Amino acid sequence: MLALDAAVGKSFACLLLSDREALYAKSEGSRAHSQSLMPMLEGLLKKADITWKDLNILALGVGPGSFTGLRIAAAALAGINASLQLPVLSISSLAITAVQANGEGPLYVLEDARAGEVFVGYYHGTVAMQDDLCISWDALNEVKQGNYTSVAMPPEPLSGWKRLEPAIDRAEAIATVVRAAMEQQVLSNLPKYVQPAYLQMSQAERSLQAREK
Amino acid sequence: MLALDAAVGKSFACLLLSDREALYAKSEGSRAHSQSLMPMLEGLLKKADITWKDLNILALGVGPGSFTGLRIAAAALAGINASLQLPVLSISSLAITAVQANGEGPLYVLEDARAGEVFVGYYHGTVAMQDDLCISWDALNEVKQGNYTSVAMPPEPLSGWKRLEPAIDRAEAIATVVRAAMEQQVLSNLPKYVQPAYLQMSQAERSLQAREK
Repeated sequence: MLALDAAVGKSFACLLLSDREALYAKSEGSRAHSQSLMPMLEGLLKKADITWKDLNILALGVGPGSFTGLRIAAAALAGINASLQLPVLSISSLAITAVQANGEGPLYVLEDARAGEVFVGYYHGTVAMQDDLCISWDALNEVKQGNYTSVAMPPEPLSGWKRLEPAIDRAEAIATVVRAAMEQQVLSNLPKYVQPAYLQMSQAERSLQAREK
Repeated sequence: MLALDAAVGKSFACLLLSDREALYAKSEGSRAHSQSLMPMLEGLLKKADITWKDLNILALGVGPGSFTGLRIAAAALAGINASLQLPVLSISSLAITAVQANGEGPLYVLEDARAGEVFVGYYHGTVAMQDDLCISWDALNEVKQGNYTSVAMPPEPLSGWKRLEPAIDRAEAIATVVRAAMEQQVLSNLPKYVQPAYLQMSQAERSLQAREK
């Protein structure tokens, strides 16, 4: 299994999972200019001493997150799968962050979405208690406060919320989410090409909307 | 040969070139949300009755053009080439437009780059007389006026310039540029992964620069 996630920071995260081992790598430098993505994936395969043809399932971190980064990851994985024709699991980037916190009860994942908005996930372990959302930070006041976690710190301190810091490695969290998804889904039913989660308008769409007004 | 270009309008253009025939397709809908790119390419292969493994060279229209679209095309082609490991030709999207105009002497390609800027190419047939540039529309006044062509109309009429309309199909122009590039380059020296032409800052880079000021 090869998983690709673009939701955190400026890099691509990649996990190669086999019965024997889990290998993890993070790209250097900016995602948008990344010349390093394919060489990084090839480096992981080489380290595991396998080839592309030895893979039997792919996974994409579909976000929510940075528009361009997620689209580049989706396009790269789709290209890879053109020849391989493997089933592709969609995993929520917020689910990965939730699992990283390793909390006991259900908890929120609150990730700054810029433009005054926040991505909201609500997870109990790997299980989503509601669909991932994108709402304004103001609207978050209407949500019952409780435990939350995030990769990036919120733009302003959140009063009434208790922050849980990431407790386990992101690599381990990706592995946990992917394994849970594999148990829950019929692999032969999975699509070969998946798209990012579009919870927020792109900057281009915003500009267009502003112009039409 | 399979060529992919994202520089024109909102769609991906794709050309499949063999000794026997040239097959062309353009994606529907927005590039950024395109779920249709891989199925479109697969449709072309099927129409030509070949598989990915029958390809022996790839080409990428590296722009200059829309930031996100070019990056998605580059990522998709890199993914495709992960298994295939073919040489990849970089072709200028402005060269394609120049060839479309089918003019007699050298001519400029002037493509609106937004944010008050213009992409400038100067071509004689498929031959670049200078590197593709990105300058402000104001700075264009210092360029000796002559014949020009473009896909999109300039934001304002250009006085002193003579416009040549596209005279041949874009598909035919891509084929001409790719064939010229293949004759000029040693295919075994070509890289397997190529990047778009970064002539202009991305919106993200602009925001970052504005914030740092």
